[in-house]
Amino acid sequence: MPLDPKFAPLFEPIRIGPKTLKNRFYQVPHCTWAGSDRPGTQAGHRAVKAEGGWAALCTEACSIDPESDAEPSTVARLWDQGDVINLRHMCDAVHEHGALAGVELWHCAQESNGMESRVAPSGVGPWPSEVALQTYAHEADSDEIRALIERYAEAAKRARDAGFDIVYAYGSHRALPVQFLSPRFNRRTDEYGGSFENRARFWIETLAALKAAVGESCAIVARISIDQLLGPEGIEIFEDGFRFVEYAEAEGLVDLWDVNITKIMEWAEDAGPSRFYKANHQAPWVKHVKTVAKQPVLCVGRLTSPDDMAAIVASGQADIIGAARPSIADPFLPKKIEEGRLAEIRECIGCNVCISRWERGSLMVCTQNATANEEYRRGWHPERFAKAADPGGVLVVGAGPAGMECARVLGERGYEVHLCEAAGELGGHMRDVMRYPGLAEWGRVTSYREARLAALENVEVHTGASLDAGEILRYGADKVVLAVGAQWASDGFSVNTLGPLPGVDASLPQICTPEQVMAGKAVGARVAILDGDGYFTGIAMAELMADRGREVSLITQFEALAPMTEYTLEKPNLQRMLREKGVRQYTAHWAEAVEPGNVTKVALHSIWRDGYQRAAGPESGTAPRRVGSDVERLECDTVILVTGRVAKRELYDALKARRDEWSGQGIQGVYQIGDCYAPRMLADVVFDGHRLAREFESANPQRPLPYIRERTIWGQQTMPTE
Amino acid sequence: MPLDPKFAPLFEPIRIGPKTLKNRFYQVPHCTWAGSDRPGTQAGHRAVKAEGGWAALCTEACSIDPESDAEPSTVARLWDQGDVINLRHMCDAVHEHGALAGVELWHCAQESNGMESRVAPSGVGPWPSEVALQTYAHEADSDEIRALIERYAEAAKRARDAGFDIVYAYGSHRALPVQFLSPRFNRRTDEYGGSFENRARFWIETLAALKAAVGESCAIVARISIDQLLGPEGIEIFEDGFRFVEYAEAEGLVDLWDVNITKIMEWAEDAGPSRFYKANHQAPWVKHVKTVAKQPVLCVGRLTSPDDMAAIVASGQADIIGAARPSIADPFLPKKIEEGRLAEIRECIGCNVCISRWERGSLMVCTQNATANEEYRRGWHPERFAKAADPGGVLVVGAGPAGMECARVLGERGYEVHLCEAAGELGGHMRDVMRYPGLAEWGRVTSYREARLAALENVEVHTGASLDAGEILRYGADKVVLAVGAQWASDGFSVNTLGPLPGVDASLPQICTPEQVMAGKAVGARVAILDGDGYFTGIAMAELMADRGREVSLITQFEALAPMTEYTLEKPNLQRMLREKGVRQYTAHWAEAVEPGNVTKVALHSIWRDGYQRAAGPESGTAPRRVGSDVERLECDTVILVTGRVAKRELYDALKARRDEWSGQGIQGVYQIGDCYAPRMLADVVFDGHRLAREFESANPQRPLPYIRERTIWGQQTMPTE
Repeated sequence: MPLDPKFAPLFEPIRIGPKTLKNRFYQVPHCTWAGSDRPGTQAGHRAVKAEGGWAALCTEACSIDPESDAEPSTVARLWDQGDVINLRHMCDAVHEHGALAGVELWHCAQESNGMESRVAPSGVGPWPSEVALQTYAHEADSDEIRALIERYAEAAKRARDAGFDIVYAYGSHRALPVQFLSPRFNRRTDEYGGSFENRARFWIETLAALKAAVGESCAIVARISIDQLLGPEGIEIFEDGFRFVEYAEAEGLVDLWDVNITKIMEWAEDAGPSRFYKANHQAPWVKHVKTVAKQPVLCVGRLTSPDDMAAIVASGQADIIGAARPSIADPFLPKKIEEGRLAEIRECIGCNVCISRWERGSLMVCTQNATANEEYRRGWHPERFAKAADPGGVLVVGAGPAGMECARVLGERGYEVHLCEAAGELGGHMRDVMRYPGLAEWGRVTSYREARLAALENVEVHTGASLDAGEILRYGADKVVLAVGAQWASDGFSVNTLGPLPGVDASLPQICTPEQVMAGKAVGARVAILDGDGYFTGIAMAELMADRGREVSLITQFEALAPMTEYTLEKPNLQRMLREKGVRQYTAHWAEAVEPGNVTKVALHSIWRDGYQRAAGPESGTAPRRVGSDVERLECDTVILVTGRVAKRELYDALKARRDEWSGQGIQGVYQIGDCYAPRMLADVVFDGHRLAREFESANPQRPLPYIRERTIWGQQTMPTE
Repeated sequence: MPLDPKFAPLFEPIRIGPKTLKNRFYQVPHCTWAGSDRPGTQAGHRAVKAEGGWAALCTEACSIDPESDAEPSTVARLWDQGDVINLRHMCDAVHEHGALAGVELWHCAQESNGMESRVAPSGVGPWPSEVALQTYAHEADSDEIRALIERYAEAAKRARDAGFDIVYAYGSHRALPVQFLSPRFNRRTDEYGGSFENRARFWIETLAALKAAVGESCAIVARISIDQLLGPEGIEIFEDGFRFVEYAEAEGLVDLWDVNITKIMEWAEDAGPSRFYKANHQAPWVKHVKTVAKQPVLCVGRLTSPDDMAAIVASGQADIIGAARPSIADPFLPKKIEEGRLAEIRECIGCNVCISRWERGSLMVCTQNATANEEYRRGWHPERFAKAADPGGVLVVGAGPAGMECARVLGERGYEVHLCEAAGELGGHMRDVMRYPGLAEWGRVTSYREARLAALENVEVHTGASLDAGEILRYGADKVVLAVGAQWASDGFSVNTLGPLPGVDASLPQICTPEQVMAGKAVGARVAILDGDGYFTGIAMAELMADRGREVSLITQFEALAPMTEYTLEKPNLQRMLREKGVRQYTAHWAEAVEPGNVTKVALHSIWRDGYQRAAGPESGTAPRRVGSDVERLECDTVILVTGRVAKRELYDALKARRDEWSGQGIQGVYQIGDCYAPRMLADVVFDGHRLAREFESANPQRPLPYIRERTIWGQQTMPTE
């Protein structure tokens, strides 16, 4: 289909400084784990988006020198010629598709823990870090500030040499320029502090240095926290925010404004998880910037809807649609709009698993796009699938995320696929999850795949189709894929015990699993939730119960509640929500037993109960000493078990027990994917289904093929240090 | 001096399988961050220990395949030929010094989060991980177990091809073999579970597979948790522990026993921090193993005393002295014993910063040995120092850890050094820290350096020598190094406010800094400690006060107490200690103000107090919405401020203000090191002093020289996947 005229403005070129963006789709800087040390992964991930129609592709934060070292989280670096070579590969790959390459020059002051470089960072003040343990900045004096600005310029020259078209002076989130501008961080009394002009001086001088160094060949971009949501203590949009835009433009220093809002610690105010933030949630702020800026303005906000994007440009909210997460979820988003293939857009669900991996120092992954970061190392393309040479018939049992993804990819590859689901609709456990408070957008995992499966003529989807082992054997498939999922333990099983909890049985009226709660099982006035899981389910049960007027206690063995949500940026708002809704928390506790009755009692103990051995030896007995006897009896009416997940492996075991029948039935192999093999995160089960389908003809598809690991091989190269 | 005869038994060779250790010093496997991906760093670190006299050098845990992936923590891998090439470099480097190279083959089941490989691990049961979030093992069936053992054998063959002499079947801590053996983890009902023989089967078959694969050329080692300190629920030494030793020996499968004790989560029971564990603390357990083992037995226990080591061998506790941390702190420990240079031994302080970096996924560092892991990337040798071509006179001001280390290295390099300390003795803030409860061993930071400085004829140490800027200018030095440290804020300054807390002033009788506490300032009956720091000082103040009978409240903004101690493995015992001593904890809280008076009140608030923005925009005001008003007034008699550290920069600023006088006084440069530049961890300030001295002739010694970063350079090599 042709381009819908209402989207035509999104495809108009726009000039930024000495460069021209071919359209309005712009991948803002985001982390990947590739940085400059994994050049193939970096180039592979950005190039596929360039191919998919994005007009500009930026690196993640790019350290200007060893003072800015986020190890173990990987960022790009422009410290030496090795980095230039490696990032040049990205620039070349992006340019091949007619897109521009951008680099986000970065210094983060006290947020650099220096764990690799071992350098103490400079900063605007002698501040301890909010995120890096035991790290303080050295308050740079004016000589040191000038040297620092010179290092920005040197990095910019290396960026130009690598081939970048766009060079950032990164000044949002935790970056140094915004710390200079912000009254919260800038308490200096010299020419770099005090008045607005003085607080702006560092950034202005840095921008001027970049302009002087590379401004003829590169566009200079300021990424700015236009409001820090701190009131007068921080940058406020109508005060320092506007003034900085006007000031920098009057000096002719900025070719593009990349605008967001953020606190320092809470960059969820920018990269908002869907649980708390709607798409374009920053609009109330950023829409004002266009009223003062003469240069183009770019905004972000988990934008996946072409209508929203068109409205943003049409309304004058911004000139350019910035995207990080939506570009990861669908690298071909612009092209699909351009070609009128809107139904094919794979929308970001706002789960922030991508961000969580940067926060944890590891490979960025995406729930919706299993090929993200696998373009180079596994050779996967998000839109192209190798046709199977000899496609047979495949039975996929279970239409949760793993099964749907596997069926989709097998379908794309030309297999005849039957996807059989016992329930009346697709989605597996997502049918419940998408009804948890705040998680409606997560339903896109199901809806995207359901639509794609419907469009594939060689895929048949059967709901209400429960199959036992015998039926599977007789089904007539060449290969069978089991994707029957997992369930919440009904007996209190958790990592704390690796077995049942005394008194716990979800067939009793007082005790519920999350599935039972969602299916409508009655819940009493006082609810105790046992959260051994540490992610979203325990929180969801607590919020749901509080919203229903229950008195809720949340018990978890973790010392800090729901630790995974720290990495997905959901934690602060989750904690506020739980406080607002009156949920009581028992962290670092677990249940010893449950006594169901008219009043159910949960016997709690501290996880620190079991004592340490100092001089003891085995003769004195090896059982741990007990410190105190702090069992507390919590009274409640209902216990909800978010204790642990149990893979449904019975079907595989039954098939395996009849392995001698396989060949007679024409079955070449039976494979397990997703939670029925091992319960894990949503992104990982989608990946698992995708991978099996990609590698379906390998000698043993159950085991992944090797992937390319980017590392030095001793003796094959020299290591540059200059 | 010659070898003392009492230590001669430590230098007797001993046979292990087909190989011979030249003496009894054995570096057990320990993590470094090098793994197989940083071959230069790996070889550099192990080779310098081989040179220093260790008879065997082992890798860290070495993953047998992508199921065992601890990303972002780096381990070695033997997945493909690239790994073989990279680890061969280590073997070659170790062999050059006549030592043996060992590799610790490793599979960790559910503790593998698979964040890089994206593979779900197999395991003994369908268990969730105690450490890896959202990770469960797939319970391997017997076919899968046999395939897994085959993968061990394949990895062993690659190890042999790389040149390793010693191959481990790693079965302590969290590794899979000990999970099979342990009743806590093994609840199987097939031939791999139930009886002792069945639970031992996996490990026995794995050892047999290794013997068959490489036993002719490699010694096979079992590293075993001889007791899990779980009572009958786990492995107990006199039960399954002994039986396994006897069983494996009867089968002729083990050439060396590497013995320790550990729980799973709490491997501090093995790698005990000095705060809780004395040297050789595992002796009460491991001494029994020799009574049943026919093959040599190795034990560990932070052994740094030659007398202790000799006694261990003489008493029959063990045949071989294993060491990880002591070998990092002093790579030349064996040689120093052999040559009678006992006073030169640099002893591990048991701070576990080395381990903390593995836990955090980053470069291993050592408080005592600044050259650890810098052998290759910076070209530093722990015992050799480039003599300065034209050494001048250097004044080092301040004899804390950074100043002492800098003076020591400058002295080794031939400079004429004056180290001037205002106080009456050396050590800086370590004079207090070593008197904190449990931290006496940390005093080795001072005592080692004090002895080395005394031995250097070109270094003069002056105590009671307080110098102001004018005196420094007139001192007659060519270069000046300032190392005057930091102090605890006296006004409540912390990361939470970046400024003073209302009502806080340590000149008041009710308010104390840690320095004042240690100097004997009076403390009342009820003590509130504000811990904005999150490491050992807040805890130390709490323990000290509790030991003096005070009623103690510990307030911190961290959601989990003292987060750094999670990484140093001190956390569980710290929490138990605080519980035993009745210290009340207010986590995720901070003080709004303090009202000193007859009864001092600390106004506390939750860190989650400030609310989130959903649909709000700037027109409605940008100040954060307040959720609740939970200010609580805590009554106390004394407030101790562990809120934040303040660098002492006044001296540098005074010198800088008189920069025009420098050349007239013959001063070529003034440099800052350690906490006076920026407060940080002890290991980092020692490093800082060391680095400045190593690079003292560079163009700008204040800025570190580049180091070698091991990474691939695009286009220079091909990436193996097989």
